[in-house]
Amino acid sequence: MQKVVFSILVDNTAGVLSRIAGLFSRRGYNIDSLTVGVTADPRYSRATVVTRGDHNILDQIEKQLNKLEDVVDIKKLEPDSSVCRELLLVKVLCDDRNRQDIISIADIFRAKIVDVSVDSLVIELVGDQSKLSAFLRMLGDTEILELARTGITGLSRGTSDVKMYGENGELMDYGFN
Amino acid sequence: MQKVVFSILVDNTAGVLSRIAGLFSRRGYNIDSLTVGVTADPRYSRATVVTRGDHNILDQIEKQLNKLEDVVDIKKLEPDSSVCRELLLVKVLCDDRNRQDIISIADIFRAKIVDVSVDSLVIELVGDQSKLSAFLRMLGDTEILELARTGITGLSRGTSDVKMYGENGELMDYGFN
Repeated sequence: MQKVVFSILVDNTAGVLSRIAGLFSRRGYNIDSLTVGVTADPRYSRATVVTRGDHNILDQIEKQLNKLEDVVDIKKLEPDSSVCRELLLVKVLCDDRNRQDIISIADIFRAKIVDVSVDSLVIELVGDQSKLSAFLRMLGDTEILELARTGITGLSRGTSDVKMYGENGELMDYGFN
Repeated sequence: MQKVVFSILVDNTAGVLSRIAGLFSRRGYNIDSLTVGVTADPRYSRATVVTRGDHNILDQIEKQLNKLEDVVDIKKLEPDSSVCRELLLVKVLCDDRNRQDIISIADIFRAKIVDVSVDSLVIELVGDQSKLSAFLRMLGDTEILELARTGITGLSRGTSDVKMYGENGELMDYGFN
């Protein structure tokens, strides 16, 4: 089982999220996470899908995604040549005895305290999956009340595979390839 | 048109993302963003959906979501009593003349430079929607090569509406209500 991150440029149309998610669920493909947001060019959104499977399955998924009408471009984000990040919000139970300990752990991970109440803290943390897992492990037996995470988003490093699109959606030679 | 953020606790089953996204697209409801990730309790995932509509539509959406078999709990995250955040990665074109200017803007927003190449920077920023928009406006005529964002995730402040679930999925009285 290989893990792969697809970065998919899609037309910014209603229902594109549903069509991508549906493609995975109908065919029984695993989907670890899916995030989507509009790009600087409002005609397009970028979806980031994390999925798993053997080589053949991943090839099939890529081909199926390419067949979707909304899909403009797909690339695989390789660990060595890309930056992948996830955002985590976690609310923990705390009191005067353990509040400072939790804040110290947050500091080590450069996490931010975004809410404080008499019996809770909400902590914001960004990182790759291993950093988020390490942070949650470090919280140890601190009681986690609520946790929300976005799923992974990512971009390739450098400019060698950047594609730009002209007024009519045509691929432009941008001069950095 | 009102904007609303639903925080939805769902069973962590395959295809739940597709069922939520499908509910919106089939009924023609607007969906601004949808993020989903597993919680500290691996039986459940938390999905955060941002949607718009008039009061009646939003009521309908909430009812329809409640009817989904996977849905355990829904709450609306109100701006005054919740923390909502989004993660943005943006790759900009730069050279020796404007690199330092871009880094200065990033510093003001407490954004992080996560990749540097001879002709590009990748910047990571977390914030609410207005912060992300302000940052992108400040980049001005800097050429944006690629942009990826996760969509919003959020948690309520404090502990007054926290719900915990027992071994058999029953709602537990946790003592902070």
